[in-house]
Amino acid sequence: MKRSVELNWVEDLVFEVDTDGQKMMIDANMEQSDKPRGFRPKALMMVSLAGCTAIDVIDILNKMRVPIEGLSISVDGKLRDELPKDYRSMHVTYVFRGKDLSREKLERAVELSKEKYCGVSATLVRAIELTYEIKIEEQPLSRP
Amino acid sequence: MKRSVELNWVEDLVFEVDTDGQKMMIDANMEQSDKPRGFRPKALMMVSLAGCTAIDVIDILNKMRVPIEGLSISVDGKLRDELPKDYRSMHVTYVFRGKDLSREKLERAVELSKEKYCGVSATLVRAIELTYEIKIEEQPLSRP
Repeated sequence: MKRSVELNWVEDLVFEVDTDGQKMMIDANMEQSDKPRGFRPKALMMVSLAGCTAIDVIDILNKMRVPIEGLSISVDGKLRDELPKDYRSMHVTYVFRGKDLSREKLERAVELSKEKYCGVSATLVRAIELTYEIKIEEQPLSRP
Repeated sequence: MKRSVELNWVEDLVFEVDTDGQKMMIDANMEQSDKPRGFRPKALMMVSLAGCTAIDVIDILNKMRVPIEGLSISVDGKLRDELPKDYRSMHVTYVFRGKDLSREKLERAVELSKEKYCGVSATLVRAIELTYEIKIEEQPLSRP
């Protein structure tokens, strides 16, 4: 199975990316700029992980008929301080919202994503330490 | 050094991501949908690599005073066919545009990115096979 993305230089350290017909901007000047025009590449690696496992978990919980009302996932990455400042670890925090949620089923969904379904996790686990935790908020927050 | 991203479930398999104050959407329904609302997580892993090395290469060539007129980078990834469909390799193609460009300097810039500066490459190289090639187009194309 193959996948491709293409990036084109626009100006300075600003780039446009085309993937699956969708466009996004990359901007390395974020820290200097009041109005950054795009994303930072290193953050996208963690977005990739968050998105991949989010899709699995929602899908698995649907199949398990676990009626969650909300899900937030944060990824905290640690990078080496010296060049090339590569990632050493990522910690994924899943916050589930809903009533009377079974922690056991939530843990099973997260585990299935990590062990069986998520291709991003399965790639990254060969390179970095990957850990996760699960939180449950009984009071559902309003959805964004 | 630490970095964080946060993702929130919107509906179906659609998610909103906040990173460095910038927002983007993730949408796993792309293949079924006429109007996908966001990016696919696995593609973002390659976008991360393309963006990271693009920034390095532009920066290094500026310092070398190599006057390129255009740069496109494509990344082609191979995934395992079976679950979890993790990446096995990525191939990066750099297309430089300009007049009388020194291939040696372009190769040096790409090599420096891979070996010394690019944190995304340095992470991925522990997990997958990473290869690259350099192409030079003497006739500058109009910039996007």
